[in-house]
Parts: sequence; C-alpha cells; structure tokens
Amino acid sequence: MVTSSRHGRSWRLRSEQIVEYEIVDAPGLLDPDNPALASVPGTAGRSGTRVVVLDDAVEALYGERIRTYFDQRDVPVAYLVLPGSEENKTVERALDVVDKLNAVGTNRLSTPPLVIGGGVVADVVGLAASLYRRGIPSVRVPTTLLAQVDVGVAAKTGVNYGGYRNRLGSYSPPPLTLIDREFLATVPERQLRNGMGEIFKMALIKDRRLFDLLAEYGAGLVEARFQDPGPGQDGVPGTVADEVIGRAIAGMAEELEPNLWEKNLRRSVDYGHSFSPLVEMRALPELLHGEAVAMDCVFSAVVATGRGLLDAADFTTVVEVAGRLGLAPAHPLFCDADLVLEALADTVRHRDGRQNLPMLTAIGEVCFLDDVTEAEIKQACATMADLLDARPADAR
Amino acid sequence: MVTSSRHGRSWRLRSEQIVEYEIVDAPGLLDPDNPALASVPGTAGRSGTRVVVLDDAVEALYGERIRTYFDQRDVPVAYLVLPGSEENKTVERALDVVDKLNAVGTNRLSTPPLVIGGGVVADVVGLAASLYRRGIPSVRVPTTLLAQVDVGVAAKTGVNYGGYRNRLGSYSPPPLTLIDREFLATVPERQLRNGMGEIFKMALIKDRRLFDLLAEYGAGLVEARFQDPGPGQDGVPGTVADEVIGRAIAGMAEELEPNLWEKNLRRSVDYGHSFSPLVEMRALPELLHGEAVAMDCVFSAVVATGRGLLDAADFTTVVEVAGRLGLAPAHPLFCDADLVLEALADTVRHRDGRQNLPMLTAIGEVCFLDDVTEAEIKQACATMADLLDARPADAR
Ligand SMILES: NC(=O)c1ccc[n+]([C@@H]2O[C@H](COP(=O)([O-])OP(=O)(O)OC[C@H]3O[C@@H](n4cnc5c(N)ncnc54)[C@H](O)[C@@H]3O)[C@@H](O)[C@H]2O)c1
Ligand SMILES: NC(=O)c1ccc[n+]([C@@H]2O[C@H](COP(=O)([O-])OP(=O)(O)OC[C@H]3O[C@@H](n4cnc5c(N)ncnc54)[C@H](O)[C@@H]3O)[C@@H](O)[C@H]2O)c1
Ligand SMILES: [Zn+2]
Ligand SMILES: [Zn+2]
Repeated sequence: MVTSSRHGRSWRLRSEQIVEYEIVDAPGLLDPDNPALASVPGTAGRSGTRVVVLDDAVEALYGERIRTYFDQRDVPVAYLVLPGSEENKTVERALDVVDKLNAVGTNRLSTPPLVIGGGVVADVVGLAASLYRRGIPSVRVPTTLLAQVDVGVAAKTGVNYGGYRNRLGSYSPPPLTLIDREFLATVPERQLRNGMGEIFKMALIKDRRLFDLLAEYGAGLVEARFQDPGPGQDGVPGTVADEVIGRAIAGMAEELEPNLWEKNLRRSVDYGHSFSPLVEMRALPELLHGEAVAMDCVFSAVVATGRGLLDAADFTTVVEVAGRLGLAPAHPLFCDADLVLEALADTVRHRDGRQNLPMLTAIGEVCFLDDVTEAEIKQACATMADLLDARPADAR
Repeated sequence: MVTSSRHGRSWRLRSEQIVEYEIVDAPGLLDPDNPALASVPGTAGRSGTRVVVLDDAVEALYGERIRTYFDQRDVPVAYLVLPGSEENKTVERALDVVDKLNAVGTNRLSTPPLVIGGGVVADVVGLAASLYRRGIPSVRVPTTLLAQVDVGVAAKTGVNYGGYRNRLGSYSPPPLTLIDREFLATVPERQLRNGMGEIFKMALIKDRRLFDLLAEYGAGLVEARFQDPGPGQDGVPGTVADEVIGRAIAGMAEELEPNLWEKNLRRSVDYGHSFSPLVEMRALPELLHGEAVAMDCVFSAVVATGRGLLDAADFTTVVEVAGRLGLAPAHPLFCDADLVLEALADTVRHRDGRQNLPMLTAIGEVCFLDDVTEAEIKQACATMADLLDARPADAR
C-alpha cells in the first residue's frame, strides 16, 4: 500500500463495497397480521423507537390504519409528517428528519427509519438516512405509481437546491423497499399517468411485451387505479396490474444493477431524460416529471425517425400509445429550439462532455448517439409543433 | 435477480463499488514549478473554473503564494475562504461551498474542487463534494498536523449538527490528498500538540516504534514545528519528522483499508474516541479534539490497568509520554462519572448496542471489551481526579 519513488512517498488505499438491496412485493401491508411493515432488514430486532415518516397525503388517507398497525404490534414509533410534491424536496425537510432521528436517539443499525409516501418524501428521507451518522439503513414504502416503479428501485436519494433538481444527493439505496399496489387506489389520476410516463419509457427502451400490455390495458389500469375488479365486475385483472408493475420494476433493476454508481454515463434509462429536465423546471408547476419524460420520449423518437433509425410506423405507434395513457406528446416548450438546445447543453455537462443520447431503433431497443446536430434539433422542434397542432383542441 | 416464492415476488440488487484514493507526500507544494497542486485526479484536464476553498488561516498566511501559483500556471480559479475551527463545521458552511460550485458551474468530473486547510474545512468541503450532483471528486491539502495524519487519510466527511459531532456526513474519500509538512511551520503550538494526540493514539494501538519516537523526539518536533533544522543548527532531523508523519499515515491507512465503511464496528482506531466525543462537545471550546482523545487514551488505560490487562509500569509510561507531548492526562469532565457514563451510552448507540471498547494490553496492542461496568467507570473517574491533582498547579 505504501509506495516510494524518486519523487517521494505515497499511500494508496483500495477498498470494495458491496451494496445489496431488495424490493419486495408485499400486498396487504397495513394488515396488522402481516409482519412485513414492521420488519427490520439485516439485524435482529432490538429495542428502541423507530421513526416513521408519512407523506401528508398518506397521513390523511392511511394515518389511522398505520397507527393501528404499529399499536397492535407493540412497536414503539415516533411519527413525522412531511409534505409531498416537488417544492418540498428541500434541505430543510431533510433536516426535519434528522431532528426527529436525534430526538428519539436512533441507533446506527437496528432502528431504521421507515418512510411511507411518494417519491419526494422517499428521496428526502433517503438522503437524511444516508447522512445520519454517515449512513444508517432505512425502509421505504412507495405509495405512488411513479415511486413504486422508479424511485423505489433506484439507489439514488436527493433534494433540489439553488434552482437545480436533485443538486444534492447520494447513492445509498435503502436495504428494503416494500411495494403494495393497494396504495394506488387513492392516487389522483393525473399522478397515475405521471407514473405511466416512466413505465412507457421502460417499455420503449427494452420491453416490447410491456409496451403491448400498455397499449391494451394501460387506459383501463389507470381507470381502475391498478386495483382488482370487484367480485363479478368487469375490468383489467389484478394479474395484469402485477405484471405491468413487475416488468417495470424488473426492467429498472436490470438496468441499474451493473451501473449503480453511474460510472458509465451511457444509460438507456436516461431515455426520456435528455431534454426534459430543463423543460420540466421551466414549465413548473404545469408539467409533472413523467409527463415531461413522455414528451422527451416522443421528441427523441422524432430525432430517431429523422435519422432513419426508427420506422415511421413505429413512431406513429409510440405517439398513439402515449395518447392512450393520457400522456400528451408535446408541449410548446418542446417546440422552442433555443430552450431544447440549452437543455441538451446542460445534459452534456451532466454526462461530462458527451451527448450519450439514447435513441430508439425499434420499440424495445436503443442505441446511443453523440452527434445530434443543431439542425436536427430544430427540425424535431418543428415536428413537435405539428404534433401539438394535430391534437384535439380540448387536449392541448 | 428476480425471485418468486410462495409469499410473492421480490427483486434483489447486488453491486460492487471499488473506491481508490491516494495520499501523496508532496513537499514544495506552493512552488509554481511544482505541478502537483494543480493536478486533477483521473481524467485529463479540461477547461472550466476550479473552486479552491481556503481555510481563513491559510488565506492569511499563504493566500498570496497560492494566488501566485495558480496565476503563474494559468489555471482559472474561483476562491472561497471558510473559517477553520470546530464551531464552523456546519451545514451552512457546506452549503456555502455548494453555492460556489453552482456559481462557477462545476462539472461532474473534470473540475474537482480543491481544499487547502485544517480538518474542519476539509470535512466541510468533502461533504459538499460528496453530495454535489450526488458526488464529485475533490482534492484536499491538509495544513494542520491533525489533518495531515488523520483527516487526510480518512474516507469520512462530516459536519456537526444538533449538538452532536459529525452527526451528518458520508464515506467518500477525495481521490487525491497532498501532504506538505512545510504548512506546519505556522501551525500554533497547541494545534500541533492536538495533532500529536492522534499520533499518540496510533502509536498506542499498533506501533511501539512510533511510541518510542514520540518519547524521544516528540517534544523537539513540536518545538521545531516539524521543520528541518537550519544549516548548522541543532534539532530533530527532518527525516524523523517524515518518519513520524509517515508511520502515523501508514498506520491509519492500514487500519482503514479493510474496513472503509466501518461495517465492522470493532475498530482499534476508535481507541481514544469512546468517551471523548461528548466530553469534547461539553468542554467546547476549551478542549481540542486531540487533547480530548489523549485524555480518553489515558482514561481507557486506567480501565485496562484496573482489569489487570495493562501493566502498571506501562500505564505510567503512557501518562509520562503524554506529558512530554504537552498533553494533559485528565480534565474535570473526565472525573464526572455521570457524564462519562452518558458518553459511553451514546457510543454504544453509535456502535449499535455494543461497547466494542478498544483496550490496551500493552503499548502497541489492543483487545476489545464489551462488559465494562458502571463501577469500573466510576473507579476510573476517581483515578482521573487523582491524576488531575497530581499535576503541577500551572498545568491544570
Ligand atoms: N431516487 C430516484 O432515483 C428517483 C427516480 C425517479 C423520481 N424521483 C423523484 O420522485 C419525485 C416524484 O415522486 P412522486 O411522483 O411520487 O411525487 P410526490 O412524492 O410529490 O407524490 C405526488 C403526490 O401524491 C401524494 N401521494 C403520495 N402517495 C399517495 C397515495 N397513496 N394516495 C394519494 N396521494 C398520494 C403526495 O403527497 C403528492 O402530493 C421527484 O422528486 C423525482 O425527482 C426519484
Ligand atoms: N474526516 C475524518 O475522518 C476526521 C478525522 C479526524 C478529525 N477530523 C475532524 O478534523 C477537525 C479538526 O481538524 P484540525 O485540528 O485541523 O482543526 P481546524 O481545521 O479547526 O484547524 C485548527 C486551526 O488551525 C488553523 N490552521 C489551519 N492550517 C493552518 C496553518 N498551516 N497554519 C496556521 N493555522 C492553520 C485553522 O484555521 C484553525 O483555526 C475536527 O472537526 C475533526 O472532527 C475528521
Ligand atoms: Zn424519471
Ligand atoms: Zn480523532
């Protein structure tokens, strides 16, 4: 480890960290007879109060059941309610979590905080836990569709800062994530479509079967909020809801596992995330993340079609299925070439100097481009304007 | 990765991260002909402004030379001056660094911030860099003795929060640390003794040769501020200064490398850090970290002697050499059994429910105890009071 040379001494350290985490499909999570929600990953349970952070919507809708659950199981819990939605993804809220951990005297390993809520509170609590005592485990229960298929699989945590999304954060996956699609019963329709935006992306980059499921059942799933039809009722079977969520999670997990720390900046999961970040920030609060992602998927498909990488027929299918999911293909900001070029420039900085643009070659397949030109972007912006004009007036 | 069982589906992710970093002995760092200070680890240099964070003492003493260095080498730099000393190790100062990184538009990899200063600013900048864009590289130049032998080898970053030391932080070593003992020429004597506290600990747990060097040359090194004697002058040779700093760094590196993320909570480098954290916080600003560490070394040796683990003669030598380094063996707070017991309780929480107390079995050897009793602590506090009384009045 110590090396000496003519120029002097140096000491080199090399160490390997193995990170493991699990996402578990756990229906019936709030049933007091189901031990899952109270489980502590890794170590055997020890005494001590657990901090349970609830999204404010979860508090309003499920707060009583959650309290009953822990009361009946005799688990000492201190609750903290944090607001969902993007503007609350701040350093201040992360410090609220830290204050609560301090107040109950959280241990290093055996009383991991539990967060039940959307992606915003999951990211905030994940960051706080990753910093507390330089990192303690936590458990997350994502309660929106987007959080279940995306945030809940990811290793990343973060908060917004200085006007930049996720400017501060860490790679530190909670060891355990529990998924129960019953929570989706109360998620507003627009938020479900938002989550559909990420599933749509996953289908496009690697899963034709998932794309076909979305084409056939997507609208029905949103309508039924991913819940089983009642006895004797019509509707999309629960097995389809499970398959769609399961394929989305599995696809994400497969893409992340070999590149958890994003050392490789050519990531197909960045599809839909090349131009959208800046558009989304500029359009705030008008566009949700998944809505902007779906538009970026379409925009990128326009570029791919222009290059002859993607068939015109496939392109039409992409736009058509987005529409069935209630996702608009375009927005005036995606027709603004100056803005889109600025967005690309920031993305290139984030990808350390290269475009690394994932592009569809078919539905379910990607390649990467590094040489998309200003002219191509301008042309694509014009096509987006056509798509916008082609929509029925009430959907604009 | 996907497993199905009777109870349902789950997805398990497993990923390996390799962390490498280097500490380089780099004398003559501020000489514009020496390229070391401007080097960027890993990637080839790219254009862009680098943030250089200076400790306020470093700004006052070396600011002009540092500016000349970067001017002469034509490196575009934005400077930020941050105050040293413990009370400035805060979330707010870490956010000042983030603001500066935002202001210059720091890239993900190719313009790593550089920090030149004591352990406080090194820890603050290290934390900011580890969170920025979820982690960017940085370079550190430690300028106090403590920072050179301890902070500069460590993988940890952190800030104090809510009255707890290092309550928030991360394991994310800067890829490159540069050591130049010339900076020690200006470090106040008390701060040098403070650094000696950590070297003393390292000697006690694993390096009898280092202990003997401290016994023979420690006082002289402090007096000469680790600088070479002038031509024809008497004094401790520079080779001894290099050996002491080198052995301390190497010992630290050896202990850290196999346990960088502290998955193993039985760490011999925690010697001197079991009771001191709370004492140090309560005594602020009276006690410096290394001073409190040295007292904890003595306190732990008292417990070990009481158990018959350590010879009485060795114990006497330990106290005696601490004295030669100008480190007091005790403080009234170390005689306060209630406080020391509270400190132990917090340490047990930090070590997840176990004491894991490193204890000397000889000078240069440790074992671990898990069953130190309240009675032993009270007895040790009484012995600390005797040590305090035994000191000459002017040293109290
Ligand atoms: N960590 C990652 O890698 C990653 C990946 C993707 C997205 N994200 C982040 O996730 C966030 C978006 O997550 P989101 O879409 O869940 O937003 P969100 O957390 O703001 O939730 C949306 C709204 O739904 C409410 N809500 C939550 N659960 C509910 C339920 N069961 N019933 C009714 N209402 C409920 C919330 O209070 C909120 O008002 C963004 O900040 C994004 O950056 C992170
Ligand atoms: N990251 C780790 O693993 C780790 C390990 C040990 C200690 N630490 C931390 O390090 C901190 C202590 O570091 P420190 O002792 O360097 O304290 P410090 O950073 O406060 O420096 C001490 C004083 O010396 C001044 N100074 C710095 N360089 C100087 C120079 N060359 N000449 C004159 N004055 C100079 C500083 O401005 C400050 O006033 C603590 O916060 C401790 O927690 C961290
Ligand atoms: Zn996304
Ligand atoms: Zn220390």
